Amino acid sequence: MSVTVPAGFEAAGVAVGLKSTHARDVAVVVNRGPLKVGAAVFTSNRAKANPILWSEQVVKDGVVEAIVLNSGGANCFTGSFGFQTTHQTAERAAELLGVGAGDVLVCSTGLIGTGDEVFRAKVLAGVDQGIATLSPEGGEDASLAIMTTDSKPKRAVHVGAGWSIGAMAKGAGMLAPGLATMLVVITTDAVLDAAEADTALRAATRVSFDRLDSDGCMSTNDQVTLMASGASGIRVPAEEFAEALTAVCDDLAAQLQGDAEGASHDITIRVVNAASEDDAVVVGRSIARNNLFKAAIFGNDPNWGRVLAAIGTTDAAFDPYDVDVWMNGVRVCTAGGPDRPREDVDLTPRATDLVVDLRVGEAAATIRTNDLTHDYVHENSAYSS
Amino acid sequence: MSVTVPAGFEAAGVAVGLKSTHARDVAVVVNRGPLKVGAAVFTSNRAKANPILWSEQVVKDGVVEAIVLNSGGANCFTGSFGFQTTHQTAERAAELLGVGAGDVLVCSTGLIGTGDEVFRAKVLAGVDQGIATLSPEGGEDASLAIMTTDSKPKRAVHVGAGWSIGAMAKGAGMLAPGLATMLVVITTDAVLDAAEADTALRAATRVSFDRLDSDGCMSTNDQVTLMASGASGIRVPAEEFAEALTAVCDDLAAQLQGDAEGASHDITIRVVNAASEDDAVVVGRSIARNNLFKAAIFGNDPNWGRVLAAIGTTDAAFDPYDVDVWMNGVRVCTAGGPDRPREDVDLTPRATDLVVDLRVGEAAATIRTNDLTHDYVHENSAYSS
Repeated sequence: MSVTVPAGFEAAGVAVGLKSTHARDVAVVVNRGPLKVGAAVFTSNRAKANPILWSEQVVKDGVVEAIVLNSGGANCFTGSFGFQTTHQTAERAAELLGVGAGDVLVCSTGLIGTGDEVFRAKVLAGVDQGIATLSPEGGEDASLAIMTTDSKPKRAVHVGAGWSIGAMAKGAGMLAPGLATMLVVITTDAVLDAAEADTALRAATRVSFDRLDSDGCMSTNDQVTLMASGASGIRVPAEEFAEALTAVCDDLAAQLQGDAEGASHDITIRVVNAASEDDAVVVGRSIARNNLFKAAIFGNDPNWGRVLAAIGTTDAAFDPYDVDVWMNGVRVCTAGGPDRPREDVDLTPRATDLVVDLRVGEAAATIRTNDLTHDYVHENSAYSS
Repeated sequence: MSVTVPAGFEAAGVAVGLKSTHARDVAVVVNRGPLKVGAAVFTSNRAKANPILWSEQVVKDGVVEAIVLNSGGANCFTGSFGFQTTHQTAERAAELLGVGAGDVLVCSTGLIGTGDEVFRAKVLAGVDQGIATLSPEGGEDASLAIMTTDSKPKRAVHVGAGWSIGAMAKGAGMLAPGLATMLVVITTDAVLDAAEADTALRAATRVSFDRLDSDGCMSTNDQVTLMASGASGIRVPAEEFAEALTAVCDDLAAQLQGDAEGASHDITIRVVNAASEDDAVVVGRSIARNNLFKAAIFGNDPNWGRVLAAIGTTDAAFDPYDVDVWMNGVRVCTAGGPDRPREDVDLTPRATDLVVDLRVGEAAATIRTNDLTHDYVHENSAYSS
């Protein structure tokens, strides 16, 4: 059900031939109100796809009526023709729904440079078919339509007392989908104003999607959207809503990590006793982006030296010779030297737990990543051709 | 001949069982003078091996009598015992050579965490045997003794009018040797003082080794050393020496790139028309460190969208929608859209030429890197175990 669990939402997912497999490839999610609140966060990449450039403007006034998403083409670096395609997509949806085009978000995912006349015609056909088949049970179809190389749809739900959150996501970390776009749509029937939605969404993504760093590559098309209908009539305490939203985002982030194609390990990097949360994130990311460390984990090799070599490149506050490193519960490095033998560490489970104790403060952060595998290279060396 | 081409130098390379293959694993290079000038640049990683900590002190006064290098163990994160091993290595060499231990550099390469009693005994035996077999023809043996997973020794020579530079290097980019250490020893019989040597070395490494970024992983043990004997009696004009030294370093950097194990492409990234050289380097590095781009090159796939997605993460001055991208002579992206078709690009040769034209200024820089391959993953997932 995903995005149609909360009251006030209808969705659809249709197939218009953008995918060579003829699977569903255009999704539409519509907010029937009474509130039409929307908030979104976007990729921080300066190279932004046309749908990002469009959606950044749409969301500014906090009013969102609907969102159209397509797989099978990123519509990025497709020139002014590509931007017009996005504009026409929103116009077409707005016309059929009887709303303003400036309140319709658009998301695309697929190969950069794809967005010709054929692409445009198919997307517009998808808008027509999607809106014609909107349904309060359409969440599942919508979640299928945004998949690219995902092996399964990602959905999450939180049910509160008389209100709920529903969500769908695509993208297997930054890892699987060849070109890595993460698209997320979250709906709720809680009563929220635009500022509350924006604050809650930024807080939740900061500690969930922003800390999923599967391969360090940043997409041109990432977008996480929250839409609130207020249909439950319930004003949820801000803290309770934030907690529920964060849990939903974290659930989806874990699903993205777990479906990272090519990956054989889901690595949770917990940096503890840091001087600041920023330091903990910087240290965690340096490990998540270290190919040598990630290749070692693929080989079930507890090569902790690569952890030290990675974190030594940061300017976070710690003494490299007074750091503890734990792998799957075994302390392998302490006080600038080896601790328990490598043989004590069992890295065969998919879930891998790395703890780096910086021993300087009380802050902590968790970064999720994956290992670097033969299948990752295979998947990403044969995408566009 | 490598480091023994210039007059005033003797070298040796011996086998003491640090390598399981029983190949040569300890090298000694001695400067017989009359000058005993030394300069060195070190890894900027804060996690530094014991030999780095030692050598940083030795080189401070600009006087270097000799250098001892071992493969088969990094002596990094081996605690105070490991530092004592480095100290004893220098002491033993100094005693046998009749010089001060504070003028003896030490370098190590191999697995982090390796440096126990057995390691120490073997290194010290290597010092004894190396110094006993020093020879003005020892450069070749020395270059063999520093190899780890290198498929061949790396040597370079520049012969001037009555003076020369000789050099040896190990490490296959940052890529091949599992843990990636680059060790370089350069000798010259030109007359230089310590300040001149330091200036020339920093200038040369800045545009050569510092721009070889095979996999973005920074070693704990990298060291590039220049020793000058003055034995030619010739004071070379600073500009001429700098040019020759840069050429030698660039030659070695190309050899390191070309021997990057697992790599199937040597990628030269030329960033042109940047606002500043720093911008050009930042942009080039962002591409060199992008796994998706590197995997695409492995797959002979001219996926230029990944170039844009990579450079869009930088804060260099340029307009992402007004950048030209050339692959092997074919302009594939211009003005925010596709240009010539992907099919026109032939990526089958090992040498790959990527040009990114930022169209904002006149500065340029070249970064060397390699592709991300199955063999890279294989090599680096099975190193310590």
